[in-house]
Amino acid sequence: MAQKPFALSIKVVIRDEAGRCLVLKRSAGSRGNAGRWDFPGGKVDPGETFDAALLREVAEETGLTISLRRVLGAAESESPTRKIAYLVMEGRLESGEVRLSGEHDDFAWVSPQDMPALDVADQFRAFAQSFGRTEAARS
Amino acid sequence: MAQKPFALSIKVVIRDEAGRCLVLKRSAGSRGNAGRWDFPGGKVDPGETFDAALLREVAEETGLTISLRRVLGAAESESPTRKIAYLVMEGRLESGEVRLSGEHDDFAWVSPQDMPALDVADQFRAFAQSFGRTEAARS
Repeated sequence: MAQKPFALSIKVVIRDEAGRCLVLKRSAGSRGNAGRWDFPGGKVDPGETFDAALLREVAEETGLTISLRRVLGAAESESPTRKIAYLVMEGRLESGEVRLSGEHDDFAWVSPQDMPALDVADQFRAFAQSFGRTEAARS
Repeated sequence: MAQKPFALSIKVVIRDEAGRCLVLKRSAGSRGNAGRWDFPGGKVDPGETFDAALLREVAEETGLTISLRRVLGAAESESPTRKIAYLVMEGRLESGEVRLSGEHDDFAWVSPQDMPALDVADQFRAFAQSFGRTEAARS
């Protein structure tokens, strides 16, 4: 049986000076996980490096300038036609104020400890729980 | 302070019909982690998609043909000049016999349960332990 093709998407947990994390609410018209919390980021376009793709998506979706800090985890989702592999990075807010695109209806800066209880998109549920627990243990 | 640039590397745990996992021993002349166990894969070249890059590296390093199945995890390493973000996939052996390149001195097919005790490259230590525990719990 032929395997579904995989696409790669890079997501980022952007943290401000207080360590809070930016989450974006998927618009009511989103094809999947409408109204749920998501992280900035998106697919890598052909010919684009993963970090350039991420900084481009962050600028489009939030208007923010960030720097990349470390790797946080991975996730996966599946649609009828394909799978998406997610690499989740941590970034730091460098400058800007959040300006949303049409893809999202709202945003929030949440503490890592509050992440496990958030209604995040299905594919990031395990990540959000693990991240929240790990960060709570570090602090 | 300027951040080090990130490169992206895709690695794969290739499993045979019995569920065993392919590991490759880094050659004695490797710059880092010489003689330690590693997974097939490598960096994504400019213009290359992540799955094409992985299948190319697997063919170069092992001579095997594989299919990609799922996302297993992520990892990170750091050198004086840059960081590498790793996405770790699971693949299935489709055809071929292992033929090593000069990058590796040996290979082994190991059970997931034996993964935590392997002397793997530093950046995959946490992954190997987590993967071994998770797979042991599944079986």
